[in-house]
Amino acid sequence: MSRTQESGYTAGIDVGGTKVFVCVADPQGNPVIKSKLRTPTESDPESFFRWLFEELALLLVERGLQVYDLSGIGVGFPGVIGDNAGILTNAPAFRWPAIDVRPIILKYYTGSVYLDNDVNMAAWGENWMGAAQGKRHVMMITIGTGIGSAFIFNGELYKGANNAAGEIGNWVVDSCLINNDHGKGEKFGPFEEATSGTGIGIAARDYLSQGGRKSKILEMAGGILERIEAKHVVTAAAEGDETAKKIMDRPLNYMAVGIANAVSLLNPEVVVLGGGVVDSGDYYVNEVRDRASKLTPLPVNIVLATLGNEAGAYGAIAAARLKAELHQKKEKINF
Amino acid sequence: MSRTQESGYTAGIDVGGTKVFVCVADPQGNPVIKSKLRTPTESDPESFFRWLFEELALLLVERGLQVYDLSGIGVGFPGVIGDNAGILTNAPAFRWPAIDVRPIILKYYTGSVYLDNDVNMAAWGENWMGAAQGKRHVMMITIGTGIGSAFIFNGELYKGANNAAGEIGNWVVDSCLINNDHGKGEKFGPFEEATSGTGIGIAARDYLSQGGRKSKILEMAGGILERIEAKHVVTAAAEGDETAKKIMDRPLNYMAVGIANAVSLLNPEVVVLGGGVVDSGDYYVNEVRDRASKLTPLPVNIVLATLGNEAGAYGAIAAARLKAELHQKKEKINF
Repeated sequence: MSRTQESGYTAGIDVGGTKVFVCVADPQGNPVIKSKLRTPTESDPESFFRWLFEELALLLVERGLQVYDLSGIGVGFPGVIGDNAGILTNAPAFRWPAIDVRPIILKYYTGSVYLDNDVNMAAWGENWMGAAQGKRHVMMITIGTGIGSAFIFNGELYKGANNAAGEIGNWVVDSCLINNDHGKGEKFGPFEEATSGTGIGIAARDYLSQGGRKSKILEMAGGILERIEAKHVVTAAAEGDETAKKIMDRPLNYMAVGIANAVSLLNPEVVVLGGGVVDSGDYYVNEVRDRASKLTPLPVNIVLATLGNEAGAYGAIAAARLKAELHQKKEKINF
Repeated sequence: MSRTQESGYTAGIDVGGTKVFVCVADPQGNPVIKSKLRTPTESDPESFFRWLFEELALLLVERGLQVYDLSGIGVGFPGVIGDNAGILTNAPAFRWPAIDVRPIILKYYTGSVYLDNDVNMAAWGENWMGAAQGKRHVMMITIGTGIGSAFIFNGELYKGANNAAGEIGNWVVDSCLINNDHGKGEKFGPFEEATSGTGIGIAARDYLSQGGRKSKILEMAGGILERIEAKHVVTAAAEGDETAKKIMDRPLNYMAVGIANAVSLLNPEVVVLGGGVVDSGDYYVNEVRDRASKLTPLPVNIVLATLGNEAGAYGAIAAARLKAELHQKKEKINF
């Protein structure tokens, strides 16, 4: 057994467009380092990973550890990552070309590395110690700037044939939209347009730009129309604001239809909702649960994610620990 | 090793509402017995299984075998069967109450038995030697009297939290239907109503019952309105009959939206379509593929099932062989 597998510390890194969350867990799986860093702007893959490993080394040294004490590292990325290939494709947040990041990482760390999509990592995290703890069949949906989803089926991550499972932004829930050219070259799909934070913000600004309409929403945005975001709309709706409730009706109905259809299809034990649009309280989850329950005879168990923006880093740790464990047992690694 | 595991013959039995298909494979997996029997009417579970094992014994004896030479038996049923429980629930074709069929089967056979839903068995069958051979991520949809679906994810059957995955008859693909009370006590869901053979037949009879409408459909049904079935409509549409194409437009659009949404969600390697409505040629599959491809950016690989009504029995053999094999290796049986 090499030194790298002895210590049993693991690092989980959740790379986002604006923040990078680094978490290191001890051999028992308890987080002992947590740090939120600002994502460097305009960096290429080479300089990004050099920066990342320098920051990681600095955090570790404070606890008398170094990178080679880690038995594994998990990294979650906002993009599609090939199953065993380590090739990062379609990462719009970074505007990088499709690239195999493994040789770059190998310069700084030669131990076990697990790379995956950030939404998959968040699902692992919620499954490990969050809202889906102990569940074998999980659907996770994150509703933020865009819409993403991830699955755990039979206790394993499910990614689909091209690692592209979970592209629910493209869902069609209203057949009168059939004649549009969905998902072909557009940034957002029709479902994403209606239900994402971006879409809710646009709908609210459009609605309130017309004169004579009263709502708490504008107040919450400091009286400035251009500053209205989805969180203002959701919070105002939760407080009973009629205009906000009206604006939320379409996104809530669309999400309810989408979730009800996924429940009819997949019969998950739990549907975990996370992301900026839903994390302001129970209003969103309760509304979607009530509406979705009327649209499928199967049980609709919708819950709020509990790990917030730490889910991805925890999931990266869980994945790294599992990979290291399977590696030691010389078992087939299914991811 | 007991005698039952020595011979390596396995039986696959697909129980349907009108027919029971029995197939026996030799140790190499080659079918050596195939027989289609008429399902006894009005039988209770006790007399049904007595009849079934008598028939099986008769078929085996012709080849010098008996039931106890089988190393495993797989049985597919039109209903929901608990994962490890062997409890048959919700089997409307038989009007039996929820019942644990294992003690009944045990009277006639004490070896390895694998029970499952008929659609799951058909998916196993197509995966073993049909249209989804060698694929690890498969969605199968059967479009017959009703609508059913089954999944293979990461190379394993996926059944969901309550073994109820695949209830796509309840899908909502048109949000103007939201106000209806879907799936609550109704026999068919809104998607099933539009897309099933039953639904297509009703739509055609309704349309043609109004005077002055010309179509090949009525001809194909021998000129008798009440005899019109979905297969007449699909065949006439495939031959270019304008009325039939018009009637098929809604079921094809609904199915295309449903499949496109499932593809966006699950990114399967292949979507296999089977059942009476689709098996008359390429027309249905081509139409649905063309329409669905416009509704998702992910690859839509739709193919026709190749094993026809033998898929369920083959799948039952595949499942029985896998179970016997895992049992011998003392590996965890995940189904």
